[in-house]
Amino acid sequence: MRVEIWSDIACPWCYIGKARFEEGLAAFAHRDQVEVVYRSFELDPGRAKGEVAPVVDMLAAKYGRTPAEALAMEEHVASVAHGEGLAYRVEGRVHGSTFDIHRLLHLARERGRQEALLDLAYRANFAEERSVYDPEVLVRIAVEAGLDEAEARAVLADETAYADQVRADEREAAELGATGVPFFVFDRRYGVSGGQPAEVFTQALEQAWKGRALQPVAAADPAPACDADGACAV
Amino acid sequence: MRVEIWSDIACPWCYIGKARFEEGLAAFAHRDQVEVVYRSFELDPGRAKGEVAPVVDMLAAKYGRTPAEALAMEEHVASVAHGEGLAYRVEGRVHGSTFDIHRLLHLARERGRQEALLDLAYRANFAEERSVYDPEVLVRIAVEAGLDEAEARAVLADETAYADQVRADEREAAELGATGVPFFVFDRRYGVSGGQPAEVFTQALEQAWKGRALQPVAAADPAPACDADGACAV
Repeated sequence: MRVEIWSDIACPWCYIGKARFEEGLAAFAHRDQVEVVYRSFELDPGRAKGEVAPVVDMLAAKYGRTPAEALAMEEHVASVAHGEGLAYRVEGRVHGSTFDIHRLLHLARERGRQEALLDLAYRANFAEERSVYDPEVLVRIAVEAGLDEAEARAVLADETAYADQVRADEREAAELGATGVPFFVFDRRYGVSGGQPAEVFTQALEQAWKGRALQPVAAADPAPACDADGACAV
Repeated sequence: MRVEIWSDIACPWCYIGKARFEEGLAAFAHRDQVEVVYRSFELDPGRAKGEVAPVVDMLAAKYGRTPAEALAMEEHVASVAHGEGLAYRVEGRVHGSTFDIHRLLHLARERGRQEALLDLAYRANFAEERSVYDPEVLVRIAVEAGLDEAEARAVLADETAYADQVRADEREAAELGATGVPFFVFDRRYGVSGGQPAEVFTQALEQAWKGRALQPVAAADPAPACDADGACAV
């Protein structure tokens, strides 16, 4: 079974939702037969590269709040994160374009290091004093995730590298009806939106598991094939 | 949309079915949004490595036919292949374990060269005077497919490399109800068995496309998420 998770590094509910999904997955009997793929979604796709601002200022401007009110919003999210055992710093975080991080996550996927890189990027953005909008930080977490430094640098330097894959993920999210993230898709059959409780993810996995029997295709009559015993219809 | 195709290099209906699927895919309006993944299935999983025999002898023994009758069986398949524009040599072909080829196809998938390698392996086995059961031939077609020679050699030399992935594909085929190959699965929702006519594949793609709307998960109430305009529920 395959679970695809659309998310953005800048999205706190994606950070929290990933932990909850993992808790839900751990309680699922067939967890060894679940493949998880992370897909790209930018919360702020129009943002220019290098245009980085404090998260609290961004929240205050977006919601028309005072800096103190915006900080309280962050403190609320932090308390939810802490409830999941996740570190979350409310001050000093910055917001920017996540396009390059998504491109790097596609490289990491090809190298079998996607989840390692994603976890490190979340930790850098939400828990540590490291800006994922600084290319040198990205290179360092890429290396920590097991990627080749020269290859990571080459991807970051070439803005077209994996750009089509990021755009394709985003187009697919829209086609699947996602209006926000995190967005979880089970075998392209069932969809769940938001940072749900862990139990909902377990139930979603169970529902998708039960519903995974293949349906026949209307037009198909029997056709020549080779059987598992090696016999080929002639 | 994602199509998974279980197949074996030794299977003539897989070779023919791949060409028919591609013809069906070419007639599908949303072909640019179709990802195709090839998965492993061995027709003869018990066969020892290096135990190679002429195909005509194998067919005669399996079906209790004379060599001339077995040759006629191959000639029939060849005529079907020719009808699809595929070269097919009836004499001189050999049969053996395809386990190493499947392992190499998994490496090729990680390197984005899976289909190139598969096409070259089919051509070597069915159309050319090259045995895919000869490791040196495998290395040469791997290089022709764009793989790194040293990496291909390392995979072939280490019998554990990608072995789990081959076994996992085969387990999954059984779980999905495949009793033979080629076996086509559309978005893990619809299944088609055998070397169907191209039109059946087009119809299967259309049926899967129409049926791809996601279903909600029973247990899920609205949960906090970040919207596409960048707003995060707090």
